[in-house]
Amino acid sequence: MDRPAYIIDGLQYSNWSERVFRQLREGGVDAVHVTICYHENFRETVANIEAFNRWFERFPELIRPARSASDIRAAKREGRTAIVFGLQNCSPIEDDIGLVEILHQLGVRFMQLTYNNQSLLATGCYEAEDTGITRMGRQVIREMNRVGLTVDMSHSAERSTLEAIEFSERPIAITHANPSFWHDGLRNKSDTVLKALAESGGMLGFSLYPHHLKNKSDCTLASFCEMVARTAELIGAEQIGIGSDLCLDHPDTVVEWMRNGRWTKDVDYGEGSAAAAGFPPQPDWFRDNRDFMTIARGLVKAGFSETEMAGIMGGNWLAFYAHAFEPAAALHAEPARKSHAG
Amino acid sequence: MDRPAYIIDGLQYSNWSERVFRQLREGGVDAVHVTICYHENFRETVANIEAFNRWFERFPELIRPARSASDIRAAKREGRTAIVFGLQNCSPIEDDIGLVEILHQLGVRFMQLTYNNQSLLATGCYEAEDTGITRMGRQVIREMNRVGLTVDMSHSAERSTLEAIEFSERPIAITHANPSFWHDGLRNKSDTVLKALAESGGMLGFSLYPHHLKNKSDCTLASFCEMVARTAELIGAEQIGIGSDLCLDHPDTVVEWMRNGRWTKDVDYGEGSAAAAGFPPQPDWFRDNRDFMTIARGLVKAGFSETEMAGIMGGNWLAFYAHAFEPAAALHAEPARKSHAG
Repeated sequence: MDRPAYIIDGLQYSNWSERVFRQLREGGVDAVHVTICYHENFRETVANIEAFNRWFERFPELIRPARSASDIRAAKREGRTAIVFGLQNCSPIEDDIGLVEILHQLGVRFMQLTYNNQSLLATGCYEAEDTGITRMGRQVIREMNRVGLTVDMSHSAERSTLEAIEFSERPIAITHANPSFWHDGLRNKSDTVLKALAESGGMLGFSLYPHHLKNKSDCTLASFCEMVARTAELIGAEQIGIGSDLCLDHPDTVVEWMRNGRWTKDVDYGEGSAAAAGFPPQPDWFRDNRDFMTIARGLVKAGFSETEMAGIMGGNWLAFYAHAFEPAAALHAEPARKSHAG
Repeated sequence: MDRPAYIIDGLQYSNWSERVFRQLREGGVDAVHVTICYHENFRETVANIEAFNRWFERFPELIRPARSASDIRAAKREGRTAIVFGLQNCSPIEDDIGLVEILHQLGVRFMQLTYNNQSLLATGCYEAEDTGITRMGRQVIREMNRVGLTVDMSHSAERSTLEAIEFSERPIAITHANPSFWHDGLRNKSDTVLKALAESGGMLGFSLYPHHLKNKSDCTLASFCEMVARTAELIGAEQIGIGSDLCLDHPDTVVEWMRNGRWTKDVDYGEGSAAAAGFPPQPDWFRDNRDFMTIARGLVKAGFSETEMAGIMGGNWLAFYAHAFEPAAALHAEPARKSHAG
């Protein structure tokens, strides 16, 4: 079996360090979309970008910033891992639509409209009522379309997600989630969403976060790859990739922050529970960034051709990024929407 | 007389509008360094960048952002005016050195270490005691050198200015001031400063703000051009340009803000007085952006060759920008310092 041309991870929130960067290189990961915000406001998010700027300065032989697909191709040639910034919440734009372009100028390429809760833009997947895209949400989606900041609905509720797919002039992404047909978690997605996503040219990244897996930490590689195969039967093999949701080397206080931010005085356990409040252990076949090739082999074993496997392991994300990250004006008359539709 | 290849204004703080942008085009101004901060903190400065992003979006036929000399050459070809962002104070970096790179990423290319008062970095020209570059100031100059953010000492005191010239690995600028030998204002510069600036490869932009002119609003074109000629005798004709300090269309409340910010409860009149607190009227031969060619003709009449005149009107700034705005790493082994020295 040939190595896939590109290995791209569609989402990760690790506790970045030289150790993790070296694991990325060891695993041959060419690019990773990294979360730089859960609940931070604009100024706090800028501080997180500053931290990455320091890492880029300190470890230029391991990582580089990526603002475009061509930056990722360059990283591959240079033997470095390309880092794409993304936000899991709209908190960094505060109530100011002008910050959409500012954040794009600072290298941000994905923004979730919600993180579990109702936001100024849409409804999160943990709310009892889903009222869809808000007035500001429509304005912000239009602005994101203009500058080339991709809408990510991984943590959003169903109606909001369907409306975002419909309203966005450009394909959106669900960077890290799995189909509900396989594991019916609050964060996983219905067939309706998956079909609408693919029909509009959007991308799904399969999550390896144990709470999104059938049998959680005990999920088998065969079960995971069988789920990928069933998804490909549903929506094709061109608009799916990996979005590992790896949260390496973090203390459990970080998952508390992810779930609770500053929005509650109670304790929300998210997909965990009081008895198992911390980060769940990874399945033994996908411990960290060194194990992507295990998935590649599993996909071929599950019946994918090597070409399909290479698409899922990175090629599909790269093709999506090539359109999604450019300002609308740079795409000229080319219709971005549905350009990836099978 | 031929038109100069480029007309570049080394500093301006106008009340931007379609009217002013159209005057820039009418005057054939190819690039202008625009002030986007006097006393604003980081978040407020970002809001000012957002305002420019809106203008770029609304008036793409008149203006475009410029982050490099090649952007300015492109603007010239396109028949647009290139806009370069600069800060007249270090307030936007707050106490956070990481914001130097963030602001460079947002397109900022000049930063004054002080605006009249003592700052965290250096001493302003209105302080009684000048203690030179501070501990943080040295760190920030080094970081500015690294990313390609030019040190501007227009509003700084003499010792601080000389130390910045000495400590900076890359040439600095005094974007808008005149020689003290012609008009001994607090803001104007000694022969010592002018010589040290030029010897290090730095640039001086001649101001047309009436408080910096001999006889203020009644200054004559001949006197101004004679002053430029005497400066060229002192430091050569390659490291001088125009930095008009035009403040068009602002109400007088804006000059109050420039002078007083939030730092005083008294009223500081700066170069004005209680009897003449507002913006002074421009000399009749330089009303606004339509009058740069009047200066060009005056320079030739004062004895400059057309080549020298073209350098002063824009070519010298363009050559300086070509080095100053690039990250240090992009300049490879080429010695940036003194590369422009005559």
